[in-house]
Parts: sequence; structure tokens; C-alpha cells
Amino acid sequence: MNLLQQHAGLYTDYYELTMAQGYFLSGKHLQKASFDYYYRTNPYKGGYLVFAGLNDFLQTLKNFKYSSEDLNYLASTGLHPEFIEYLRKFEFTGTIHSVREGEIVFPNTPIMRVEGNLVESQIIETLLLNFINFQSLIATKAFRIKLIAGDRPFSDFGLRRAQGLGSIQATRATIIGGATSTSNVYAAKQYNVPAVGTIAHAWIQSFGDELEAFRTYASHNPDNTVLLVDTYDTLKSGIPNAIVVAKELEAKGYQLKGIRLDSGDLAYLSKRARKMLEAEGLGYVKIMASNQLNEHVLKSLNEQGAQLDAFGIGTELVTAKPDAALDGVYKLAECDGEPRMKLSENIEKLTLPGTKKLVRYYDRAGEFFRDGVLLKDEATEEVATLYHPHYPHKWTDVSGLKTEELTQIVYENGEIINPITSLTEIHDYLMKRSEQLSFESKRFINPHIYKVGISKGLQTLKNDLLHQIKPSPCK
Amino acid sequence: MNLLQQHAGLYTDYYELTMAQGYFLSGKHLQKASFDYYYRTNPYKGGYLVFAGLNDFLQTLKNFKYSSEDLNYLASTGLHPEFIEYLRKFEFTGTIHSVREGEIVFPNTPIMRVEGNLVESQIIETLLLNFINFQSLIATKAFRIKLIAGDRPFSDFGLRRAQGLGSIQATRATIIGGATSTSNVYAAKQYNVPAVGTIAHAWIQSFGDELEAFRTYASHNPDNTVLLVDTYDTLKSGIPNAIVVAKELEAKGYQLKGIRLDSGDLAYLSKRARKMLEAEGLGYVKIMASNQLNEHVLKSLNEQGAQLDAFGIGTELVTAKPDAALDGVYKLAECDGEPRMKLSENIEKLTLPGTKKLVRYYDRAGEFFRDGVLLKDEATEEVATLYHPHYPHKWTDVSGLKTEELTQIVYENGEIINPITSLTEIHDYLMKRSEQLSFESKRFINPHIYKVGISKGLQTLKNDLLHQIKPSPCK
Repeated sequence: MNLLQQHAGLYTDYYELTMAQGYFLSGKHLQKASFDYYYRTNPYKGGYLVFAGLNDFLQTLKNFKYSSEDLNYLASTGLHPEFIEYLRKFEFTGTIHSVREGEIVFPNTPIMRVEGNLVESQIIETLLLNFINFQSLIATKAFRIKLIAGDRPFSDFGLRRAQGLGSIQATRATIIGGATSTSNVYAAKQYNVPAVGTIAHAWIQSFGDELEAFRTYASHNPDNTVLLVDTYDTLKSGIPNAIVVAKELEAKGYQLKGIRLDSGDLAYLSKRARKMLEAEGLGYVKIMASNQLNEHVLKSLNEQGAQLDAFGIGTELVTAKPDAALDGVYKLAECDGEPRMKLSENIEKLTLPGTKKLVRYYDRAGEFFRDGVLLKDEATEEVATLYHPHYPHKWTDVSGLKTEELTQIVYENGEIINPITSLTEIHDYLMKRSEQLSFESKRFINPHIYKVGISKGLQTLKNDLLHQIKPSPCK
Repeated sequence: MNLLQQHAGLYTDYYELTMAQGYFLSGKHLQKASFDYYYRTNPYKGGYLVFAGLNDFLQTLKNFKYSSEDLNYLASTGLHPEFIEYLRKFEFTGTIHSVREGEIVFPNTPIMRVEGNLVESQIIETLLLNFINFQSLIATKAFRIKLIAGDRPFSDFGLRRAQGLGSIQATRATIIGGATSTSNVYAAKQYNVPAVGTIAHAWIQSFGDELEAFRTYASHNPDNTVLLVDTYDTLKSGIPNAIVVAKELEAKGYQLKGIRLDSGDLAYLSKRARKMLEAEGLGYVKIMASNQLNEHVLKSLNEQGAQLDAFGIGTELVTAKPDAALDGVYKLAECDGEPRMKLSENIEKLTLPGTKKLVRYYDRAGEFFRDGVLLKDEATEEVATLYHPHYPHKWTDVSGLKTEELTQIVYENGEIINPITSLTEIHDYLMKRSEQLSFESKRFINPHIYKVGISKGLQTLKNDLLHQIKPSPCK
């Protein structure tokens, strides 16, 4: 299922099209361009970002074309007939370099690089940003939860409060970050993720009696029943009735899979529930929690010794509360063979000019030490020093350290190169990388700021351009 | 374009299907049920909600069916073969009552009521919540911005930072709330909204010189050019170059449409820009602003006397920062002819039992006075008193006030009743209703809490049920 159907080429900001038309009408459309994708601020006041959305983006990019229906529409908006004809044959023929999906990345580094002619590299900007920004944001949220949940599974329960159809891509990203299943059936099918769920309060209310409701559900699903115990009174009704049903299941050779707490004090109720279950020899019954969970609530529950085996996490997971958006941008770095740069009154908004590569440096223990941004044609092994991007008197010696070039070709000649479609594989890669990221970078409060440096070559190019770019002559 | 294509029936939480299966296997599936949609907390610490998403939801509901492909998938998840066959013929045959799209509504009132058999009314829960929660949240945000922007147009620029495909529905909701156009081409086509945009920084960077970049764009679009003036230096380069181009356009009989400020101090720069333009006789050139805008920034810009004629608003508008989600719920109110209620340790989470109607009372000036929740069969004109939902000693006399029943049938026998597809019409209705909502309810800081009451009949039913519902017998 391609979510945008045959209209992916329309999934763009209108100014991408007016600019592309301008390049075309000016005869600039075949100029070579290079754009960088990067972000400026780690989400959740954290220390890193989990890069996600890549394969979804690349799959959609293959369908980024214009049907006759689309072109008729675009003509109606006032675009030039010659440009409309140009779009009729449009496809992205450029090359994309990217870090691996599931990689742990840091601000102000060129995570992706798009090279192509000026039209094609410009026109895909919005698609890339929409897919990568959101999924990276959600994968990072899910990974933060995974760090606290540990080996206990958690499910994406977010569909009902998600931001519309963003729910579908959110599910994909939650699995990359560490969720093990989803309630979202559409996304489960789309991305081959286990779909989970049993009953809501309405099921129990639809019966005259809670015990009858529990019994009926268990009779149809004897090996897969999780009973929601808070419809009337968790400790006085829900759990006692669940125990009755658990014993009835035992008599038939089955085991009640679990109970779910969805309101009240989860720490207190889970401890009481565990005691009540164990007193009846039902220690195997899992206790699951839901209701406004996030990484901070989970951490607090851990600290209180809550007796919880699994979690259903909805709203905050799939809407990335409180951040809601990642500030990823897509900036022109080279055009027509010349490095390009955007100035700004805000020093942090200066762009890094030229075609670059992203190199990771490892310390002797194998942990991430620095990320370095180098010019593409610099020999990595000859770069001995990394400089602070803005303060040249701050530098680090990286000579002799183990290095890895993080970006590889992922799209070329209209094809995805070495596609990784398995979300499990992407998650496993993330977990492996997580072991190489310092504990201090992963903590929630005032995490360690991982350092990113630039090479001498890039520093020189940047300074040269800063002095060259002068305001155009004005009257 | 149906965004969910032929798979709308899968756009649901898995537990809706396991419950539906349970109803079916227990022979309860033909029992009549009535569910209410309501929300608990106004978004943005505001005083109301703009109800949106209705027609989009109803259109999708018409396609809420299961293809063979879907059924094969569902069978693979372990659903019962007989239930799979039942789903093969599934369509929603129930009746939906709802307030009008664009209506201003308040917490804990039954905004929508879904009546049907237990399976069909249960199984559409998640679709309804996903569509209505998100669009209402965004329409409310857009309306808050509209209240400050007044007659000055603002555009949805949010696609690049939106929550994935939620961008498309977000655009629809921003137009209902008051946006006049969008950068999102896909959504513009889907919902018949003007698509807008001209140039980004990359356009300017792709030329050797800012003036050449401006001139080139203007030459292709002499009657529709908005120049982005902050790529190098707003006051020393961007605006002077824009003035040169404006004069060149004048010489050819055209007018420069506008300039856009996208960074720096928008209040200061806009005032300087206005003076520079007016000094050259270019007072007609509009000044547009973008960059991290929201209703509070707009209000502050107004207070500072900023000289801005139009706005492009992105991230915060389409992601509903800082709220990210609306807490709308869907609760069983009646089943098999009996009123149903969910208890809770939290008094605000008690549900209102029985089939109800929503009545608005007007004061003598025609402003909204109270919303009343009555039992469906109560005669509105005989209800003289509304009681606080939780504190029976608080009540209001509403006798003799003008009333209006807010919910009407919007879906029946598989058809949408009196569909309103024009977003302009929905927005116009909102603006009309806004005039009837007190100023105090619309302010941002500590808005007036609009009161909602329940009838004596509903109060009695609720109290009776509270005493009747006892925990099931436990050992």
C-alpha cells in the first residue's frame, strides 16, 4: 500500500514547484546541486536523535511522479504549460547518501545528502522533511521508553489520539524505537507488526455483570485473554473476578494471560494486584498498565517498585509530547559546482557549505567519541583535528582514532540501494549502537552534549565564503 | 482520493475487532447500542473547542469495509473464520447524530451519538476518534490564530514539520479554523484550497547574487512575486534589492506583491521595512512574516505595532503545540435497551448513561448561555432547571430561554445526510457562532468557564445507576 497512492508528487510545498518552474524557465534546471538534511535541536531536551523514516521515504520517492490528473490540477494553479510538460516526465534521477535507518545521530551534522539536478533535488525537499522529521521524532520517543521498559514489552496504543493519518507512520517509528506491537491494525498490516488488543470498558459494560463479561471473553480466547479490571472497582471487583476466571481457565488447562490496569494509582494497584494473584497461585498472570504513560511515568513506576510486566502507551508516544515536531531542515550546500551558504543573524543558523561527509570517531573503548563533518574530498585519515563549528579556538585531536564514514549511497539511478525493510533489523541496529553511546548521553536530565566538529578544510571554506558573500550592490 | 484507499476497515484498534468478534460469537451482535463522543478538557487552556473532521469521517465511514485482502490478513491474526465471514458483508448501517461541523462546543457534552448494533457501533470507534480528535484540535488552534490575525490572511505552511500524513487532515482543519490557503499541494487538491508559495532561501542561494535571483523570479511571475528578503541581510541587502525589483516591475506595469520576513526580530524589521518601502512610494507592497509563529507571538507583534499584512504559520499550527492531542472519548451509554455507565475513582471520569440530546440555551442578547444534556425523550420545553453534573446543589434556572437542539442526524441508512463539503461554508458557520460566544470565553488567559448542566431526568438516572451498579459477587 502506497499511502499517497498515485499522487506522491503532489506531497510537496507549492514553492518547491514555483522554484522548480523558475529553474526550468531560466535554463538552470540541469545545474548540479547538493542539499544537506540536518536538524538543530535534540528532541525532549535529550542528548541524541534516532534517525528513522528512511526506507518509507525512499519507497515513496520511487513513486514521486505526476499523473495527468495531477498535471491538470497543477496547470489550474497557474504553472506554465512548458513546465507542466516537463513534469510529465519527471522522476528523481539523483543520488542520495544517508546514515543507516536506526542510527543514533546528533545536531548540525549532514545526516542525508541529496545530489541531483537543481529541479529534482529541490522538488523532493518537503517529502523528505515530512517523512524523516516525524519518524525520527517518534522513534526517539519510543527508544527513550525502551530504555526504561528494558525487557518488558510495550505496545503502541496511540491511534485514537494520533495526529490523523500520521498514526500509520508513527507506528512504524515506535517499532524502530522499541515497541513490540501495535493496536493499529492498518499499520500492523502495512509494516508487518503484531496487532494486539483484547477488550475495552464497553465490552464489560455491554454485559449485565463484570464476571459474565470476563468469562465470555475468556471462553472465546482461552489462550489469549487480558482482562481490563477497572470498569467498576479494580480491587473489589475487577481483580477478584479476574481470579475467578483464571481458576476456571486453569480447570480447562489454560492460563489467563494477563490483567490490565487503566486508571488509578498504577504503582499501588499493581503491587496489590500482584499480591492478590500470588496468594491464589496465579503468579504467572502478567500485569499490564496503560493510561497516559510516558518515559518519565515509567521511570517513576520503576522507582516505586510497581509490579508491571507490560505497557500500552498511546498519546504521548505517537504525538511526541511535549515536542510535537523535529526541527529538521534541508539546505543548499553546493550549486553549479560552487559551494553555497546561507547567512543569518543567528550564528547557529549559518549553513555548512560544500559537499561534505559525516565521519564518526570512536574512543579506545569503542564508544562514540566525536562526529566530524569533513569535505567530501578530504582524506579522512589525514584529518587530525576537529574544530568547533563556531568557535575556532575550541578543537580536539582525533589522530589515530578509529573512524567510520556514516553516510552511504541509499538511492541511485531510480533504485533503493541495499534496502532494509525489516523493522526488527533496524531496531536491532539501534540497540547495538545504543551500547556505544555513553550512559551520560542517554540520561533524561541534562544529558551530556555529544561534540560535533568540522575539519580544517571545511572551516577554511566557511570562513572564505563568509568574507566573500557581500550584500548585492544596492542603490 | 480516499486516503485510506480500500482498507478503511483496518483503520481501527485491534481490540475493536476482538470485542466485535466476541459480541458476534456470543450472539450479542444484534443488540442495540448507543455510544457518545465527548471530550474532557479544552485544548490550549482555552474556553471551548471548534468541532471539526465530521465530513471527512463520514466520507471514510462509507468506505469502512473489508476487502478479501483485508480479511486474509485478519484471519492470519487469529480471528475466527465465522467472524471473518461476517466481516465480509460488514458495513455500518447505524445512525449518527452530531453537532454541525464548525460548531463551538464544550467539555463533557455528547457532541456525537452513534446508534447501531453492538458490532457496528463498537468497530467504528477508533476511526471516529482519530478523525474527530485531531481535526477539532487543529481547527481550534487555527481559530485562535484567526482571532488575532483578524482580516489579515494566514497560510498553513506546516507540511515539512507535520506529523507525517496527518499534514493532509491538518490542512483541512486549518481552513475551517481560519487559514485562507496552504503550501501543501496534496491537501490543496484534495480539499479544494488555494495552494500558495513562491521562493525559499535555496532559490536565492542558487544564484550568484540576490538581486539576480529576485529579478529572475519576478520576470517569470510579474504579477505574483513575494520576495524572501533574509538570506544574507534583511535591511542592507534583501529589502533594498526588493525595492529595485519593485521599481523595475512598476516600469513594466506590474506591482510587486510582497516581501517575506523569515528570521530576526519581526516587529523591528517589519517597521523598518514599511518605512523603507513607503519612502520609495511602495506602500502597496505587502509585508508577510513566517518563522515559528503562533497565536501568542501574533498577539505580541500586534501589541508592538508590527507592520505585517499576512502570515505563514507552520509547525505550531499543524502539530497543535503544546497540546499535541485532544482527549476525546467514545463511551457506551445504552445497550440492549438498558442505560450503561462506567464508574471511576475519578469523579470526572464517570460517564453519563442513557440516550441523550444536547441542547443549547441562549441569553436574551442571543449569546450562548448554557449547554444542557437531557435525556432524549425529555421534552426540552419542560426542562426548567439544569444541574451541575457532579454537585447537585449547583443549578441554574433556564425556563423561558431560547433553546436549540445541537445534534442532528448526519448519517443514516448508509448515506451522509445534508453533507457540508465546503470548508468555506464550515468556516463561515464558525465565525457566525463565534459572535455568539462571549469575549471572556475566547480570551487566552484564564478564560471564562462556560457552564454545562444536566436535566433532572438524567441526574436521577445517573444516581439510580450509581447505587445499582455493585461489584459482581466475589468469593
